[in-house]
Amino acid sequence: MQFTKIITAHIDEIKTAIGAENVFIDEESLNSYSHDETEDLKYYPEIVVKPADAASVSALLKICNTHHIPVTPRGGGTGLSGAALPIYGGVLLSMERFKAILDIDVENLQATVEPGVITEEFMNAVAEKGLLYPVDPSSKGSCFIGGNVAHCSGGPRVVKYGTIREYILNLEVVLPTGEIIWTGANTLKYASGYNLTQLMIGSEGTLGVVTKIVTKLIPKSSHSVLMLASFKENEQACAAVSAIFRAGITPSALEFMERKGVEWVIQFDDIKFDLKDDVNAFLMIEFDGDDLDDIFKNCEKANIVLEQFECTEVLFADSAQQKEDLWRMRRTMAESVKSNSVYKEEDTVVPRAALPQLINGIKEIGSRYGFESVCYGHAGDGNLHVNIIKAGMSDEDWKNKLKDGIVEIFTLTAALGGTISGEHGIGLVQKEFMPIKYSELNLNLMRGIKSVFDPSGILNPGKIF
Amino acid sequence: MQFTKIITAHIDEIKTAIGAENVFIDEESLNSYSHDETEDLKYYPEIVVKPADAASVSALLKICNTHHIPVTPRGGGTGLSGAALPIYGGVLLSMERFKAILDIDVENLQATVEPGVITEEFMNAVAEKGLLYPVDPSSKGSCFIGGNVAHCSGGPRVVKYGTIREYILNLEVVLPTGEIIWTGANTLKYASGYNLTQLMIGSEGTLGVVTKIVTKLIPKSSHSVLMLASFKENEQACAAVSAIFRAGITPSALEFMERKGVEWVIQFDDIKFDLKDDVNAFLMIEFDGDDLDDIFKNCEKANIVLEQFECTEVLFADSAQQKEDLWRMRRTMAESVKSNSVYKEEDTVVPRAALPQLINGIKEIGSRYGFESVCYGHAGDGNLHVNIIKAGMSDEDWKNKLKDGIVEIFTLTAALGGTISGEHGIGLVQKEFMPIKYSELNLNLMRGIKSVFDPSGILNPGKIF
Repeated sequence: MQFTKIITAHIDEIKTAIGAENVFIDEESLNSYSHDETEDLKYYPEIVVKPADAASVSALLKICNTHHIPVTPRGGGTGLSGAALPIYGGVLLSMERFKAILDIDVENLQATVEPGVITEEFMNAVAEKGLLYPVDPSSKGSCFIGGNVAHCSGGPRVVKYGTIREYILNLEVVLPTGEIIWTGANTLKYASGYNLTQLMIGSEGTLGVVTKIVTKLIPKSSHSVLMLASFKENEQACAAVSAIFRAGITPSALEFMERKGVEWVIQFDDIKFDLKDDVNAFLMIEFDGDDLDDIFKNCEKANIVLEQFECTEVLFADSAQQKEDLWRMRRTMAESVKSNSVYKEEDTVVPRAALPQLINGIKEIGSRYGFESVCYGHAGDGNLHVNIIKAGMSDEDWKNKLKDGIVEIFTLTAALGGTISGEHGIGLVQKEFMPIKYSELNLNLMRGIKSVFDPSGILNPGKIF
Repeated sequence: MQFTKIITAHIDEIKTAIGAENVFIDEESLNSYSHDETEDLKYYPEIVVKPADAASVSALLKICNTHHIPVTPRGGGTGLSGAALPIYGGVLLSMERFKAILDIDVENLQATVEPGVITEEFMNAVAEKGLLYPVDPSSKGSCFIGGNVAHCSGGPRVVKYGTIREYILNLEVVLPTGEIIWTGANTLKYASGYNLTQLMIGSEGTLGVVTKIVTKLIPKSSHSVLMLASFKENEQACAAVSAIFRAGITPSALEFMERKGVEWVIQFDDIKFDLKDDVNAFLMIEFDGDDLDDIFKNCEKANIVLEQFECTEVLFADSAQQKEDLWRMRRTMAESVKSNSVYKEEDTVVPRAALPQLINGIKEIGSRYGFESVCYGHAGDGNLHVNIIKAGMSDEDWKNKLKDGIVEIFTLTAALGGTISGEHGIGLVQKEFMPIKYSELNLNLMRGIKSVFDPSGILNPGKIF
């Protein structure tokens, strides 16, 4: 793709339109917006802008559309697929000043927020009113809700409460041509033409820039209990997952962790945890509700299922501290792995009963290619994050052969009815693998939709397809 | 729009491609596929085809695309927006032979079905395995699951279990140009590019013809209790709705019915019901779960809320017969109204705390225009079906003035944050009202998407926009 390089006249035009104080061209700014959490990739923008309202975003996009300057929107910069990397330079549009929680409407159980609100801050604000916004990715302490919308982000509670698709009711969006629309209505149901709200969710900032978000909220449960079940083998832990649901119980979280992930968290963090020699895999199983007796009944039912899968031990965490320690172990796993080794993260998702085949397949592929892997994730959704570890692999093999291994992992994922990303998105680093699962017809439909929203192709170019 | 009239050569070509036994041109066929459940509209197709597999649909669409012949897909013919009416003649594509439940996968809690399966038959088939497919529109005994996907159909259980969007995981679709794609993956989460599955849901057969549907299933609760609460005034009943959710309880159904609707059901059907003089509105409130004690606890909590809204009486139905009688009352309401009067149905939906304003506004508008109305619907979702009754309105006013009244109703709906259809769709009869809620920009995006999927515009032309 060919774009216009930014010159002083463009910068002046942008400064005039959105205020000079919102435009940055210093080296530090360009550097700090050149990367996100995706591996070690770095792409420098030509300028960084930080507008604070939709009108400024609109003015900016009109200028860039006229001059054919690429614009890359960015949320909290916690993305794992490189969707926020300005690979063609141009304008980096940081949404960090869209920080307002505009309304928490307890009558309707809805909220209106700006996209730069940190997910956990939003969750805390609604929790103060006894309400729950249940979409809490591991990065909730630093990611933005706008980035969550862009990537169809998940987290552990999806398994009970549904994906972000159930919680996003309506979006204010600035189109790449600068017009501003609301995508839908502030309603729980919508059958009024093509659902543009749903189309925006997961579109990774390629169709428009979200400037306001209307969410659904639900009542917050007053109690939860977290179980940590230990297993001798990955396969048994993974097989227990679908059995739990077949027993008629729905946990509010059901997470899988491999031993090596726990080992590395213990090294990385100051978490105390007695890791037994014969344990190779864990399930974290949470039940929530308003009645502790009911919760314990569900725990008992889960226990009966676990016994059938060579579960060696079940710990119960019911104090706030115990629960927080276990959740911290799970949440810091990605960071721990990253701190230990060069790695590459894949975000496989399959129908949940296929998890044992998936994890066995990943290990077998790894043994052929010479890489190790640490797997963990939202097993209740069939979603396994595969951290591929360089370990003993030579630099040359890592550079040249690893890709074939990843192709094999995704080919297996697709063959099991799954897809190549459950909640991290495609962005830059997964797009070469899209044809493993999706036909050229599918990709052409996506490209066509992109052209409808962004005829000049200026918004987040080079992502997804 | 200009289309090619079908001539004998086209019919022969279609017969050769998909089998002469699947092509009908007799008067009776043309007549019986000329209408659906939308008012008294009639549009005759030139031919009716009833293929039974995706390859035949593909062959048909290729022929029609080449010759520029319009194709109108049709499910069970229960639609209320006229989306299945062949307004430009051409081919009526009945999906009635796509009747197979291909797989009920109890390991993964998923099923694969063809679009011509009657919704209730599918629900019964999964219930036999202890599972629930909770999307049950009032027409569940005759509508097709494919039509439900096309219209983003709802029903009473959406309020607890989520919309059909949460249950449709993947679709096999024949594009208007004849190519066949799968839209996504058989997974609970998907972040792999634009979500074509979600885009198909609610697209009313304008983007492609669905030929296979992969659904999510959930465990079926073993118990339910249904309460019928009586109120002196509509407004009080409607105001109680949002208060119930604010009390932290989530019913598995929460339906509103106006007195007149119940009166007409009693006349139409043989239901025995003691309708008290001072009662003008009802809420049907259902709780389900696996533990009857829990259910009764929720009923008690609901009762406490109801007392604050001048609720005059609460009946409890816990026998299967009592529950079925009450549900039949609710389900036959549309038919009862239709049998009593010329009517027009609107499908308003607003944030649920706005229901009192909505119903008061509808009555006030009616009094100015001289029409009566019977309102009922899925109040828990903020979704009110407004049956506008001709009553004393003159034929001339019904023909010429009613539209202004409907414009006022939808203008109010939009002003309250709502939209003009929650679950019936836009189809033919609501499209003129779309600009009340959606800007020309929104409609142009929809038209653009339509062109990407259907460059020749042959599939269900003249619907939505």
